[in-house]
Amino acid sequence: MTNISVLGTGLMGAPMAACLLAKGHAVTVWNRSPEKTALLAAAGAKVAASPREAVTAAEVVITMLSDGPAVTDILFAQGIAEALKPGTIVIDMSSIPPATARDHATRLAAKGILHLDAPVSGGTKGAAAGTLAIMAGGAPETFEKAKPVLEAMGRPMLIGPAGTGQVAKLANQAIVGMTIAAVAEALLLAAANGADPAKVREALAGGFADSAILKQHGQRMLERSWIPGAPVKMQVKDMRTIMAAAREAGLTLPVAERVTALYEDLLSAGHGGLDHSSVLLELEHFNKGKRLGDKPDQMP
Amino acid sequence: MTNISVLGTGLMGAPMAACLLAKGHAVTVWNRSPEKTALLAAAGAKVAASPREAVTAAEVVITMLSDGPAVTDILFAQGIAEALKPGTIVIDMSSIPPATARDHATRLAAKGILHLDAPVSGGTKGAAAGTLAIMAGGAPETFEKAKPVLEAMGRPMLIGPAGTGQVAKLANQAIVGMTIAAVAEALLLAAANGADPAKVREALAGGFADSAILKQHGQRMLERSWIPGAPVKMQVKDMRTIMAAAREAGLTLPVAERVTALYEDLLSAGHGGLDHSSVLLELEHFNKGKRLGDKPDQMP
Repeated sequence: MTNISVLGTGLMGAPMAACLLAKGHAVTVWNRSPEKTALLAAAGAKVAASPREAVTAAEVVITMLSDGPAVTDILFAQGIAEALKPGTIVIDMSSIPPATARDHATRLAAKGILHLDAPVSGGTKGAAAGTLAIMAGGAPETFEKAKPVLEAMGRPMLIGPAGTGQVAKLANQAIVGMTIAAVAEALLLAAANGADPAKVREALAGGFADSAILKQHGQRMLERSWIPGAPVKMQVKDMRTIMAAAREAGLTLPVAERVTALYEDLLSAGHGGLDHSSVLLELEHFNKGKRLGDKPDQMP
Repeated sequence: MTNISVLGTGLMGAPMAACLLAKGHAVTVWNRSPEKTALLAAAGAKVAASPREAVTAAEVVITMLSDGPAVTDILFAQGIAEALKPGTIVIDMSSIPPATARDHATRLAAKGILHLDAPVSGGTKGAAAGTLAIMAGGAPETFEKAKPVLEAMGRPMLIGPAGTGQVAKLANQAIVGMTIAAVAEALLLAAANGADPAKVREALAGGFADSAILKQHGQRMLERSWIPGAPVKMQVKDMRTIMAAAREAGLTLPVAERVTALYEDLLSAGHGGLDHSSVLLELEHFNKGKRLGDKPDQMP
């Protein structure tokens, strides 16, 4: 049993905190919008009024926030770093730029606080089931100490030193973003050439085109269900970080570049709140009149 | 037990014929290069000296050839269509344009010969194991009759009328081509940002970025093993057919277009014989000096 603070109980943080409670940990939660903590309180979590109050007794602090500035703010502007005892482990499970994660690790290390960047993949379903892929960057000793806590939420793997968890997550998001676009183009092609896209999707399962994206996001496209899941605005954030990390490494990624433009256009068209599988809508917009089936769009 | 002729016993046709033999069918084979039939003869196949001789007693004729013109030639220029009795089933498992498949079906129907287009996915491994994804287009009655034969080679599924098996295969190849490029870009990004790409690939398994391509082609990229598998020249053929089918349907597919250009450049650079996962080489060429690991390239 570990005293764990979870800062950020949104779409992902809430089910992750519920998994920690289910494994018998003592969990204190804080969220900017306090209404998102009510269900967790009913499940046995303590609810704190501020981030600083949330970490008073923490052995492990988990942050699950929207972006790099939000994590920097909570750790260093809201007094968390000062409040923590040396030896406390901060596990940042948010998806933020690798350079920001390295900076956080360095600043915390100066106070004797341990740090892991440990972003996840698997979505809200994986968070609820406790089966997230967890990509960690940091010191091996810190990873070993944090492992039982991480294993309550999924399958953790140490990639390498600070920041490399975030690098793995960027690779993950790059593949996800590109594969969603690939599935959308392929299903549109099939439909425009007279094949039932639902049967095509089913036939492709088990072959080389099979993927988690074909199964789940392909199904969303067929049902035209755009309730997230992961919203377009988060995919755009990730694609921008990917493009920035590529530029910083002197790397040109032509396919990721083209796919980023699709998601950017989708965001500009006001679809930031739709599930990222709605890149199909952008391709349909592109190809006026072509539509994948005649079901109505299910909007969030 | 069905009398089956297999015309074309190359990388895919040979193991598929072996699966039919293993299920107790009477198999007669023909191949343009006769040395590729020797192993099948040892396994119990009859070897014919010409396509026409191969189909004398056939109830089912399977063609597994390189492209549309090769199939048209063997069916209609080498006397197969004349030699077959009405009611014989021609199953073309080659990957050819949907329009060509529809044309074959129409021309054979005029002689009372049944036709399925039934291209496959799963590669040489799937062919050897009898676990191919088989995407069929044609009449439901013909599909039912052919099903026991198809099931000896994999998991058949009827998509719709003539040509739609080929449409499904194009969707498959489009996803495969784009996902390979996505995995290559993501692993390059990870390596250039200081993460071990082998660990990244492993960490991504089970998350949303997971796919047959990440597992198999991702591993080829890490090992720099370019022995096909499926060669670049076949991927280029497929991407060209995809682009043509999109154009004919009035469809623009921006990501497939960008990926097609990558494979075309790879072919122009003389790499047509390498496995299609070697699109990584094109991305490395693009990004002079960046390389995914320091293993030597394994060339065919």
